[in-house]
Amino acid sequence: MKAVGVLENLPTSNVASFVDFELPDPVARGKNLLVRIHGISMNPVDFKERHDIVGKLAEPAILGWDACGEVMAVGDEVTEYKAGDMVMYAGEINRPGCHAELQLVDERIVGPKPTRLTPEEAACVPLTALAAWEALFDRLEIDRLTDENTALLIIGGAGGLGSMAIQFARQLSKCKIIATASRKESKDWCLKMGAHHVIDHSKNLKEQLVNLDHDTVPLILNLSSNIPYWETMAEIIAPEGAICLVASTKAKLDLDLFMGKSVRINYELMFTRSLYATDKMPAQGDVLRQVAKMIDSGTILHTRTEGMGKISAANIRKGHARIEAGQMIGKATLSGINT
Amino acid sequence: MKAVGVLENLPTSNVASFVDFELPDPVARGKNLLVRIHGISMNPVDFKERHDIVGKLAEPAILGWDACGEVMAVGDEVTEYKAGDMVMYAGEINRPGCHAELQLVDERIVGPKPTRLTPEEAACVPLTALAAWEALFDRLEIDRLTDENTALLIIGGAGGLGSMAIQFARQLSKCKIIATASRKESKDWCLKMGAHHVIDHSKNLKEQLVNLDHDTVPLILNLSSNIPYWETMAEIIAPEGAICLVASTKAKLDLDLFMGKSVRINYELMFTRSLYATDKMPAQGDVLRQVAKMIDSGTILHTRTEGMGKISAANIRKGHARIEAGQMIGKATLSGINT
Repeated sequence: MKAVGVLENLPTSNVASFVDFELPDPVARGKNLLVRIHGISMNPVDFKERHDIVGKLAEPAILGWDACGEVMAVGDEVTEYKAGDMVMYAGEINRPGCHAELQLVDERIVGPKPTRLTPEEAACVPLTALAAWEALFDRLEIDRLTDENTALLIIGGAGGLGSMAIQFARQLSKCKIIATASRKESKDWCLKMGAHHVIDHSKNLKEQLVNLDHDTVPLILNLSSNIPYWETMAEIIAPEGAICLVASTKAKLDLDLFMGKSVRINYELMFTRSLYATDKMPAQGDVLRQVAKMIDSGTILHTRTEGMGKISAANIRKGHARIEAGQMIGKATLSGINT
Repeated sequence: MKAVGVLENLPTSNVASFVDFELPDPVARGKNLLVRIHGISMNPVDFKERHDIVGKLAEPAILGWDACGEVMAVGDEVTEYKAGDMVMYAGEINRPGCHAELQLVDERIVGPKPTRLTPEEAACVPLTALAAWEALFDRLEIDRLTDENTALLIIGGAGGLGSMAIQFARQLSKCKIIATASRKESKDWCLKMGAHHVIDHSKNLKEQLVNLDHDTVPLILNLSSNIPYWETMAEIIAPEGAICLVASTKAKLDLDLFMGKSVRINYELMFTRSLYATDKMPAQGDVLRQVAKMIDSGTILHTRTEGMGKISAANIRKGHARIEAGQMIGKATLSGINT
């Protein structure tokens, strides 16, 4: 099969940063599905994994963790899917990604493609839906009982993950959603997704929250970097409040700032359940099935905003450059490799 | 009234580290009770607050946050207590403490003295009961539904807080309680409090947990310092596990270690609810009422292990030296000032 790989961590300005290559078709065994990729979307984890490559690899690493495609074959322990099914999934961080013609994926973390979406649109859903769902419901524990005075601050609302988080919080809780965005178009996007208010993260957050009658907020989902917001989060979090982080920090942090208020700090990494094969791994398949239904009933929108052609080293390279710039609204997608 | 105060942060070897002094009797207003102190107990927060004093104070600061005494008068908004009631409470960190003849305390954070305990025994209960209760039930969210395979590691089990945490976890959850202690007498104490297993925190925790068939544990309550256990906690915590910290760190920490497993880190500070006058402040009174009932029915033991005479500068100074040494089993107490 054809695939796109990375041999070393090179800047996207270097044409050798991604390579087209061929390798044998994988074979589905056990709980695995063999999927022909029809569409993929891109996420910050793509370039973070590329940046974490040390030295030069012996074989190209296949990145990419958001895909939609057709099941071609199934392993002998598969019970939920069969050849011909259209599926969507984020996949596993410790296995080859979706920048390829074919990919193996564990059926426990797979959902059906929403019927009303194209494969490219569906490929925007899994990673952000799973991360947003787990961040809101498993980490911050927001739910239908949260009342309208419960302020949820989403720092970085306009990206793929923010877009999904705003929608879930609006559809499945009564939280007052305050998203942050710094540009006119990203602010409009957050409002379209369902945010009640949008404030500007390039300005003083505390002052803007006070203007919305919130001296503090009980819930913060920080989808941006941690360091620039660390002291601010300590200032604006309510006593006994909860914060959810999704980004690594790469520097040590002063946790004492959060002691006086007995704050809860959660990490959300969508890959934890599959990486450690925890008891909750099948919950990811369940979430994707629920989300597919919500999309087909029209209550949740996909977040695709632009197409970047077919999967190829040249196009993936352009995609990495786009998301590294950190100004994406919604998600960019690519279509399957020509065969 | 007579009181014992601190003017500056001096070592306990210095006789000037505490002073006997007199000041006017306080007057109960609003939700306050005026209490005549009959017994107090000592906690690490006592010496931490003394160490945090910068420079020389104009007036002596009265420390001490665990008391039992008789209500002498009540403010005009008090509804739960009346003169003559015997009460116990930890008090508020931003108000004068209990090293005095009389003290004002908000009735929302007060409970009745358990009838079977002496005032000195009752004074050992409030601070550790509240901190342990909130750490276990509000932060780590253990409850009656936790099954017997849910391992709860309590690092530093033999101190006052650990003793109360072990008892609550044993009485009110099905957790398998693994406490740490390093000496024969502290190990025996943890088992008496209800720990299922005791391991030695001066040796490799991971190896000892593996010997108990736990590669990882889903719940860690760290009652000791954070830095010596930081990497170890990252290694032994289960994916999606929860950690509760009670100590300040005074150094920056690598939070990234906990990202891969999507770990939850909670701070528990028993003073948060009163310091910020949160909606949950009256929950502390409720907890103390429940604990008083459990003590009177014999299911929870007080943790008093030694008496140190009456409240005086000399005796308080000896008490600080004892708890600063960090080898307390249970709690040391003092009786009220002679009047």
